Amino acid sequence: MGFNVEEYISERKKLVDRMLSELFKDASDSITTLDESMRYSILAGGKRLRPVLCIASAEAVGGRAEDVLPVACAIEMIHTYSLIHDDLPAMDDDTLRRGVPTNHNVFGEAVAILAGDALLTDAFFVIAQSEISPYLVVDVIREISKAAGSKGMVRGQALDLALEGKEVSIETVERMHYLKTGALIEASVVSGGKVGGATEDQILQLRSYSRNLGIAFQIIDDVLDIEGGEDIGKSRGSDIRRKKATYPGIVGIKKAKDKALELTLKAVSCLRDFDEKAEPLREIAFYLGGRRY
Amino acid sequence: MGFNVEEYISERKKLVDRMLSELFKDASDSITTLDESMRYSILAGGKRLRPVLCIASAEAVGGRAEDVLPVACAIEMIHTYSLIHDDLPAMDDDTLRRGVPTNHNVFGEAVAILAGDALLTDAFFVIAQSEISPYLVVDVIREISKAAGSKGMVRGQALDLALEGKEVSIETVERMHYLKTGALIEASVVSGGKVGGATEDQILQLRSYSRNLGIAFQIIDDVLDIEGGEDIGKSRGSDIRRKKATYPGIVGIKKAKDKALELTLKAVSCLRDFDEKAEPLREIAFYLGGRRY
Repeated sequence: MGFNVEEYISERKKLVDRMLSELFKDASDSITTLDESMRYSILAGGKRLRPVLCIASAEAVGGRAEDVLPVACAIEMIHTYSLIHDDLPAMDDDTLRRGVPTNHNVFGEAVAILAGDALLTDAFFVIAQSEISPYLVVDVIREISKAAGSKGMVRGQALDLALEGKEVSIETVERMHYLKTGALIEASVVSGGKVGGATEDQILQLRSYSRNLGIAFQIIDDVLDIEGGEDIGKSRGSDIRRKKATYPGIVGIKKAKDKALELTLKAVSCLRDFDEKAEPLREIAFYLGGRRY
Repeated sequence: MGFNVEEYISERKKLVDRMLSELFKDASDSITTLDESMRYSILAGGKRLRPVLCIASAEAVGGRAEDVLPVACAIEMIHTYSLIHDDLPAMDDDTLRRGVPTNHNVFGEAVAILAGDALLTDAFFVIAQSEISPYLVVDVIREISKAAGSKGMVRGQALDLALEGKEVSIETVERMHYLKTGALIEASVVSGGKVGGATEDQILQLRSYSRNLGIAFQIIDDVLDIEGGEDIGKSRGSDIRRKKATYPGIVGIKKAKDKALELTLKAVSCLRDFDEKAEPLREIAFYLGGRRY
């Protein structure tokens, strides 16, 4: 049992942070603050959960971290763009993110919108520039753009806003969460697997793993928003203040925690045909499931 | 002399409109207005200049309109997203676009931001879904994402905003225009050529054609903003009111018109090695150069 999940996450996170620093080191003009704005949010830290999952998934099927790194970084760029736009005054109107002022609070709304747009667009450039085979690039771009666009994350955010203050069923909340958070987590795991050389069967199993993991992750986030207990980098209780539709808000905290545990176990069980190379994926699920609460 | 450029544009435009209507016909949920918002802007008409240029470029090297149509539509989706975001209150704060209320005026800022995000993301999905070879898909995505992202269109918009009300050199205005408008026009023509099967030499020539055309197009737009004369779908004189850096604003209208004509002729001369299949590209340049003023 020499495997240390925190060490694994920290080492893969370092690879991601290094490549992102490299990608965002040059300024392209001295007139605008676009570069500073992009850098501010992309290098603001964050757990790097999605890129680490992407790498762990590639490694679970025998792939190498270096090969999948551009895809992992592109996914983090897309995640970061979504945070910048979600925080805008017209959306969730947040002032803190990852413990520091939100992008528009530092650079203004116009530059924040543009920085998000640029991170999203450049993410596809980073994938297209990578050295993996064109066939895989197309497959991965299809996967990620579907998960991030109108059939995925963007619709999730639109639903989240539209449902604020409304009575909603648990099914609607689950669907909203799947779109808003789960779809991109799924794309991270599936893309990693594809680049790593997964068989079609393995892709199906990785997809199931990530679907369960994604919902568990969101439920735990919502519980943490109520209970606090972990530095979530934003103000506690913001979901309640904003009358957001959340899982614990509907079924209560106890049932929400049970559900998260159940989903975590289910996620891990999807990997039963994988060998010890999938240990990081299994341990990350338990690690996320056990976030302090 | 049987070639009728208006008829050519109108027929290619129909292909584009038909595919876009098809792509945007289904609503994905009954809770948000995301679908209506995307459809509102993408089906609002518009000249379809970029997709028509993309198709004309493919045809100029012997390619077929059908093959390049998904790429052409994706470029129009990216163009449309940029208009929605540029019109936002935090940016140009426009109330009219293509003769109708801007997206955020109808659907609100949050949905307008999300509709733009979705159009941009889905554009890459449309390209990745197309039936052209993976090698070409990757090449085209690289071309388009570079032209649209932080090294292209987004930076152009950031520069445009940063330069408002400032004294600027003609070189700075040219660079801003190239990034804001020219880069995506170039990507339209170059992508069309690539999908159509252009040789490397032809790509270089198409690139030069489109660079000259793009700057000419922007100068003429700026002249029309001052002189009116064509239904440009937005209020005349808006550049002046907003203290935008424009070409005619710096060198005067007469010199701006001379420059636009010079660039148009230069664009057409870049196609001297092309046969009669490039007639549409040549005629479109003259057509745009001769917009009523």
